[in-house]
Formats: sequence, structure tokens, C-alpha cells
Amino acid sequence: MKKTTLIKEGKAKRLYNTDETENVWVEYMDQATALNGKRKDHVEGKGTLNNQIDCMIFELLNAKGIHTDFIKKISKNEQLNLKVNIIPLEVVVRNAASGSFQRKFDVPYLQEFDQPVVEFFYKSDALDDPFINTNQAQALKIITAEEGEILQEMALRINSILKQRFAQAGLELVDFKVEFGKNSEGEIILADEISPDSCRLVDLETRASFDKDVFRKKTGDLVTVYQEVLDRLINSQEEAHV
Amino acid sequence: MKKTTLIKEGKAKRLYNTDETENVWVEYMDQATALNGKRKDHVEGKGTLNNQIDCMIFELLNAKGIHTDFIKKISKNEQLNLKVNIIPLEVVVRNAASGSFQRKFDVPYLQEFDQPVVEFFYKSDALDDPFINTNQAQALKIITAEEGEILQEMALRINSILKQRFAQAGLELVDFKVEFGKNSEGEIILADEISPDSCRLVDLETRASFDKDVFRKKTGDLVTVYQEVLDRLINSQEEAHV
Ligand SMILES: Nc1ncnc2c1ncn2[C@@H]1O[C@H](COP(=O)(O)OP(=O)(O)O)[C@@H](O)[C@H]1O
Ligand SMILES: Nc1ncnc2c1ncn2[C@@H]1O[C@H](COP(=O)(O)OP(=O)(O)O)[C@@H](O)[C@H]1O
Ligand SMILES: [Mg+2]
Ligand SMILES: [Mg+2]
Repeated sequence: MKKTTLIKEGKAKRLYNTDETENVWVEYMDQATALNGKRKDHVEGKGTLNNQIDCMIFELLNAKGIHTDFIKKISKNEQLNLKVNIIPLEVVVRNAASGSFQRKFDVPYLQEFDQPVVEFFYKSDALDDPFINTNQAQALKIITAEEGEILQEMALRINSILKQRFAQAGLELVDFKVEFGKNSEGEIILADEISPDSCRLVDLETRASFDKDVFRKKTGDLVTVYQEVLDRLINSQEEAHV
Repeated sequence: MKKTTLIKEGKAKRLYNTDETENVWVEYMDQATALNGKRKDHVEGKGTLNNQIDCMIFELLNAKGIHTDFIKKISKNEQLNLKVNIIPLEVVVRNAASGSFQRKFDVPYLQEFDQPVVEFFYKSDALDDPFINTNQAQALKIITAEEGEILQEMALRINSILKQRFAQAGLELVDFKVEFGKNSEGEIILADEISPDSCRLVDLETRASFDKDVFRKKTGDLVTVYQEVLDRLINSQEEAHV
């Protein structure tokens, strides 16, 4: 199998066709963005770190019975995925207050929720990714009512698995963003990426950030903290497989 | 029964205690506001029009089995309501695109939805009434999951009744906002007001606005159109009772 034409270059990854039409070849780039792409930096080593972290996470989710687009790791910064029709929603799960939730509702940073909070954002550059509810998403024919329930349920199952896995690595999963797509049978599949780019992680003891917030807020070195996330995941792997 | 101390003066109504502690005496004022109260005009006659329209609507909803706070009309601009603990959510139901929905998602004005859209806004002046989903509302302890479902269900039942009633008056119900409260037993009750201040109504034929949009957009005389809504409701009442 080999990669053929470029399908799309996003903010973090390049997607290529392969000679197997049902697959995409994903290349993680050494690029970090903030402010919806307005700030864009070359960050040497980021691609390999996120690809390796993402491969570990998606392998775990596959093993736990979540249907994902992950097929296999190709190289340090490349992986093979099932090609899906991306549902244009960013699905966010929050275990504690941070980011836009904290700003919008003026609650203390990292205040814990009794139940995880699920939010949907409409992936539309023209509309600036607005926050959307499931009724609105149905009116706009993005999803059906049933699909809304499946997304919510899958997002919560993924959250349970990730929360536990990151805790084994000494990290609290504050929140994360995922994307879903549909395979050729119309089944909903977890797609895209799970990495410190799309998760908020804080050290269970010190509460220090181990995610893209160090880049967004310029409070630390991205590669150093992403490397630490990868190392911690690797070092806690035995434990995780027990 | 007589009114006693002022409880609260809002943007449209004054609430008074009565000598019966479980009730509130509501006085509809001759005041119109826009831009969250930043624009505030005296509008002679508005209070009596909205009170009369609201009384007709709430009587109908009571008759149809919706639990509401409406007890009786006291005068042209006053009514007696059950005192409730207001749930700080504005519950919006939309049958077609207008206002914030239309702006946010850039869809054509009055585009019809296959299913009504329900939205919640958190009634908080400090936070500027942000759009909120039911997960967030639970995290903020505004409602429980079960209450979220009750609100959604009641809002849709109210929509069905109002849609039909306004259609009998030659008006299309585009959208409306309601508030709910809890009675002393914790039961959820429709409260506050339903009037051209809180509904978007357009003529079924001409599509002209018969609601507060004429004031917001300065496209017509508020009292003239509210009077027309009242007249149409009265003239279609026989029909409505069949
Ligand atoms: N399995 C997949 N099949 C098809 N498209 C995918 C798949 N996984 C991710 N994508 C899409 O690949 C694109 C590139 O990813 P990325 O660089 O993260 O883009 P973005 O700038 O939208 O964040 C995104 O639009 C994402 O939705
Ligand atoms: N039955 C009720 N019991 C207690 N409060 C009520 C009831 N009905 C309405 N209210 C409250 O009365 C206040 C005054 O109404 P209004 O002038 O419309 O206020 P606002 O400026 O919030 O729109 C509002 O805060 C509303 O929530
Ligand atoms: Mg992305
Ligand atoms: Mg009001």
C-alpha cells in the first residue's frame, strides 16, 4: 500500500489517498496553531509526538470496543485510517471547568462537575465554529435525533476510558474534543485525532498543564510537555494492560 | 384580596405581594425595551394590550391542561398569578428561522424547520443571558436531567397549542420565549408572559411582522400591531372554542 494524492491539508495533519480507496494516509505535521489558525508556528517534533500519542489512544479505544477510524501506525509521524465522511461537529466532553466553559459561565478554573458535560460545536469556518445544541443540529440537517444520542453516548464512553487511562499516567483529563464520521455503511465511527492538541490534561498532583494550553497561553514549551505525556503513557502501559 | 409590597420591577411588569402569600399581583407596564434593556421607551397602551393577550393565551393553555401560573385577570393591565420560584432559563421554541438563529447560522429568514427547535438561554444579566445546553445547565445545577426533559416536552406542547391558536387568528408563530417556575411542591409550572413581546408572529399571507420586531427594527408602530393581534385573537375566539 502506498500514499497517492493529497486530499486535504488541515491545521495539524495532511490526509492522502492510498491505492486502497477505503483508507486515508495521515501525516502529522510539525505545526501548532491557535486562535482558529490565526497564529501558526512551526514546532519541530510535534508531529511525531502527537502521532505516537494518538496511535496509543486509538489502539486502546479499539481494544475497548469503540469503533474508530484507526487502522495502524505507519511511521513515527504517519498512520493509516479508515476514510469516513466527517460529521461537521466538534464534540467536546468536560469533566471540569476550563476554556470557553469557564469564560462563558464565570466559574472557577478546574471546578469539577457531578456529571461530564457534552457540548457540540458546528465545524464551519465561515460561521466561526458556533456552539450548537442537538435540536439546532437537526434543524440544519447535520444529524438526526438518533445520531445526536449516539454521539453523546459514544463521547461519554470515550471519556470514561480516557479519564482512567490518563489517570494511570498521573494526568487528570479536564476536557477533550473529538470528531466523528460515517463509514460506507453509514455507521458512526470515532475519527480524527486525540492528542494534547485536543485534550486538556493537568498533573494530578501539581495541576500543571500538559497540553496545548502551554502554547495558547505561552506558559511553557509544547514539545517538552507533549514528550512528558508520551513518556508517562508508555511508562504506565503495563499497568494499563493489567 | 389586595396588593401589598412591590417584589420586583422588571423590564415589562411589576410584581407585588398580595394578602394571600401564595400569589403575585402582576401589573403590565407601558414600557418597551430592546438591546437587553439598553433602549427603554414609554409606550402608552402597551401594558393593557399585553395583559389582555397574555390572559387569553394562558386561559387557553390552562384549558388545554398545561399547568400555568395564571389565576385570573384583575383589570385591563393587571392579573393574578401563582407565585413560583422562577427557573433561570429562557426557553425558546422556533418553527422557522429568525433572530439569533438566523444570524448565527446564516440561513434564510423564515426558513421552516422539519421539527421545532428548542433552545435554552441562561437568564443571567451578569453573563448576558448566554445560550446553554441541558448538560451545561445540569453542571451549573440550574436543572436536573429529568427537569430538562420536562421543560423541552412542555415547551413543545405549548408550541403546538399556540401555533394552532395563532393560525386561527391568521398569524404564523415563528418563535417564542417562555419561562418556567416551580410551585411549593416543586412541580414545574409555565410562568411569566406570552405576548407579542415574547413571540415572533407574521401574517400568514403577507408575512408582515405583528410583534416586538416592529419596535426592535423601528419598522412600525408597536401599539397598532399589538392591537391588531388582540383584535384578531378576539375575532377568532368563537372558532377557537369549537
Ligand atoms: N478518517 C478520516 N477520514 C476523513 N477525514 C478525516 C478523517 N480523520 C480526520 N479527518 C479530517 O482531516 C482534516 C485534517 O485534520 P486537521 O489538520 O486536524 O484539520 P483541522 O484544521 O480541521 O483541525 C480535518 O478536516 C478532519 O475532520
Ligand atoms: N408567577 C411568577 N412568580 C414569580 N416571579 C415571576 C412569575 N412570573 C414572572 N416572574 C418574574 O417576574 C419578573 C418581572 O417580569 P419582566 O418585567 O418580564 O422581567 P424581565 O426584565 O426579566 O423580562 C421576571 O423576573 C420574571 O421571571
Ligand atoms: Mg484538527
Ligand atoms: Mg420579561
